Amino acid sequence: MSARMKLGVFLWATGHHIAAWRHPKTHVTAGIDIDHYIALARTAEAAKFDMIFCEDAAGLREANVGIASQTSRSIGFEPISLLSALAVQTTRIGLVSTASTSYNEPYGLARTFLSLDHLSGGRAGWNLVTSASPIEAANFGATGLKPHADRYERAREFAEVVTGLWHGKASGHVGQSFSVRDPLDLPSSPQGAPVMVQAGASDVGRDLAARTADVVFTAAQTFEEAKAFYDDLKGRMAAHGREPDDIKIMPGVAPVVAETEAEAREKFEELQELIPDDVGVTLLSSYLSISDLWRYPIDGPLPELPESEGMKSRQALVVEQSRRDGLSIRQLARHFAGARGHWRIVGTAAQVADELQARFEGGAADGFNVMPAYFPGELDAFAALVVPELQRRGLFRMEYEGTTLRAHLGLKRPS
Amino acid sequence: MSARMKLGVFLWATGHHIAAWRHPKTHVTAGIDIDHYIALARTAEAAKFDMIFCEDAAGLREANVGIASQTSRSIGFEPISLLSALAVQTTRIGLVSTASTSYNEPYGLARTFLSLDHLSGGRAGWNLVTSASPIEAANFGATGLKPHADRYERAREFAEVVTGLWHGKASGHVGQSFSVRDPLDLPSSPQGAPVMVQAGASDVGRDLAARTADVVFTAAQTFEEAKAFYDDLKGRMAAHGREPDDIKIMPGVAPVVAETEAEAREKFEELQELIPDDVGVTLLSSYLSISDLWRYPIDGPLPELPESEGMKSRQALVVEQSRRDGLSIRQLARHFAGARGHWRIVGTAAQVADELQARFEGGAADGFNVMPAYFPGELDAFAALVVPELQRRGLFRMEYEGTTLRAHLGLKRPS
Ligand SMILES: Cc1cc2nc3c(=O)[nH]c(=O)nc-3n(C[C@H](O)[C@H](O)[C@H](O)COP(=O)(O)O)c2cc1C
Ligand SMILES: Cc1cc2nc3c(=O)[nH]c(=O)nc-3n(C[C@H](O)[C@H](O)[C@H](O)COP(=O)(O)O)c2cc1C
Repeated sequence: MSARMKLGVFLWATGHHIAAWRHPKTHVTAGIDIDHYIALARTAEAAKFDMIFCEDAAGLREANVGIASQTSRSIGFEPISLLSALAVQTTRIGLVSTASTSYNEPYGLARTFLSLDHLSGGRAGWNLVTSASPIEAANFGATGLKPHADRYERAREFAEVVTGLWHGKASGHVGQSFSVRDPLDLPSSPQGAPVMVQAGASDVGRDLAARTADVVFTAAQTFEEAKAFYDDLKGRMAAHGREPDDIKIMPGVAPVVAETEAEAREKFEELQELIPDDVGVTLLSSYLSISDLWRYPIDGPLPELPESEGMKSRQALVVEQSRRDGLSIRQLARHFAGARGHWRIVGTAAQVADELQARFEGGAADGFNVMPAYFPGELDAFAALVVPELQRRGLFRMEYEGTTLRAHLGLKRPS
Repeated sequence: MSARMKLGVFLWATGHHIAAWRHPKTHVTAGIDIDHYIALARTAEAAKFDMIFCEDAAGLREANVGIASQTSRSIGFEPISLLSALAVQTTRIGLVSTASTSYNEPYGLARTFLSLDHLSGGRAGWNLVTSASPIEAANFGATGLKPHADRYERAREFAEVVTGLWHGKASGHVGQSFSVRDPLDLPSSPQGAPVMVQAGASDVGRDLAARTADVVFTAAQTFEEAKAFYDDLKGRMAAHGREPDDIKIMPGVAPVVAETEAEAREKFEELQELIPDDVGVTLLSSYLSISDLWRYPIDGPLPELPESEGMKSRQALVVEQSRRDGLSIRQLARHFAGARGHWRIVGTAAQVADELQARFEGGAADGFNVMPAYFPGELDAFAALVVPELQRRGLFRMEYEGTTLRAHLGLKRPS
């Protein structure tokens, strides 16, 4: 646990609430509106966020084209081009993009992120994912999604090559999946190396994080889940010769905040009512990696599920919640559609701050990746209401102290 | 031949002259200095250039690390991140980046360029290359550079998938090298589709250009070479159901310009004297795709060469020049090092304009890709001296008439 919490903002087209695009205060083309993103980045920087975070998938975000077009992020920029543009429209905030180890090559990826790092004066980070989506897989050949273990085996070697290149190890790498002869045509990073982020939560995913990551994003609903994940991951660090504090654990949080609790609830209900049932159920199916959930009665319980080759941790999360609260498919669909499996807090700034403080001081998080329900409204509300409350409590910085992402996060400069 | 000539500016770290980095008016870190690039882009835009052009290779630009570090582009940004940053610092100028069909996948590449196109309001272009460099190949596996024919076969299918995706053809592609199921998660381009550029000059390269390209870059020393290439390529268009004017042919030109001819010659000689012999010979070797040129007497003739699997057209160019002018290895090395195989003009604005006009009006070019010897000095000189001269002659625009790259180039909007 660090002295002050870290805050990222996860930018995503019209917003994280699946129905954000139907909200009267969003515009459907936000995902390809660079002025929209520049405004969000500046708001986040003025609020002293550590970083902007972008997800990625080279494909539609939902399998069904009709459903995909009815979600908050039906269209959107490719994140490297987006963050490169934001790099020259901001001066301090970190810029983290997701990129896949399954559909890229390490030389090109290492080069692109180091280039973004130089462009931004040392503010870049790479969120390593192995890409669990079969939708994405179908755009990269006919053989389908590779097994979980194979993806992670490739990811491990991939990360090793990338960090080797970042650290100027010119000596050729010859391995199982990759062979790379030369160094990059770039000098070393202004921050030592771009920040390594990871978001896998399976056993092998956690091991990879403990070995290589500086930051980990997670999805945890309850304090207990978050705490268990936190302790488990920090506990794995020693085996890799690292200190627990060398990795910052930042669960996603989907807040809806207003001056009064009633107002916040009203805002949230307004969004929930915009979710079409078919969209909610389809999203739930993708979390569960099954395709025929719509065959089951929507007001009945979840059926028995085959083990997922996709997002194991996401599936487990849904199944557990369904058992714990006895929720129907419709209820689960609404629940997960609303926050996409992330932790949701609806309330006043004090209430949101209380919850964040409890997880932070309770040793369940080093910070949070904030996922506003719709943009710019809910980011504005978080920046105007919650950030000052956290600052008053001494939980968040008043000013940036350094100029690099690594400095914001209090990470050691790699040697 | 179009009414007015098209002009691109090829941005490249400290400059196109191999010794630009040693010039007193450049700085060695220009290749990773975003402010340097922003200033260049703004100069080019103020001069109404059609576009900025970036080369690309995922690897060192010279095989020998020691030599690579002694060239004008020893370090440099990855071009997509660079152009994305420039997109939000400019408003009109086109943004063209090279990207390889050998080390990318079509879904990802189509997405990235369309994203840049949306970021820039319809100003993006893709320069398709198959990547002839064995240096680059060694960073993508242990099997080495693939044969020329195989690279082009992959490139043909690659281009077909990319343009299909840009035109919103959602129907899955299942082919020899690629299988792509879904459409992109982006609406169609503000300019119909990003501009397709091509720079291969072999027979199969020309055929691919005639089939798919909107713009072709070439390297031609003499009027006759340029004219022959021009006529050949325009002549290939009908076979693909296209008009000759649907493709714009823009040879590279490396001008050194000053108020007087003597001054221009002096500037050029100053640069030539900065070239170390070992660097010149190494660069020449890479154009010839042979590795042991240094074994031959530097003041003797070129040895007999094996046929290249790399840049066939480049090799032919050097061999021909060597025969025609009876040049020694040292002389060839200096000659090609100076302009990297491109057409060089040293003189006053009127002399440079005369030469460009002769090729343009003589039906050997639709425009030119300008390769300044060093930055910013020689771009500034071209913008201040040559552009106004071309404008006075009615050969170049006074103002942008449209907002997209396709509009600048006078290309039809694809349906
Ligand atoms: C906050 C967060 C963001 C994520 N973003 C992405 C993403 O952008 N792209 C992606 O393919 N997976 C993303 N994931 C999924 C994970 O990275 C990972 O691929 C997935 O959890 C499967 O790995 P696991 O089986 O180790 O959990 C994200 C997960 C979390 C918690
Ligand atoms: C102006 C110009 C720029 C080029 N830029 C690149 C480049 O950035 N990267 C690359 O791999 N090849 C580049 N090339 C090489 C060609 O694209 C092509 O790969 C090469 O000429 C081999 O193809 P060919 O055998 O058809 O000529 C360039 C060529 C020209 C004329």
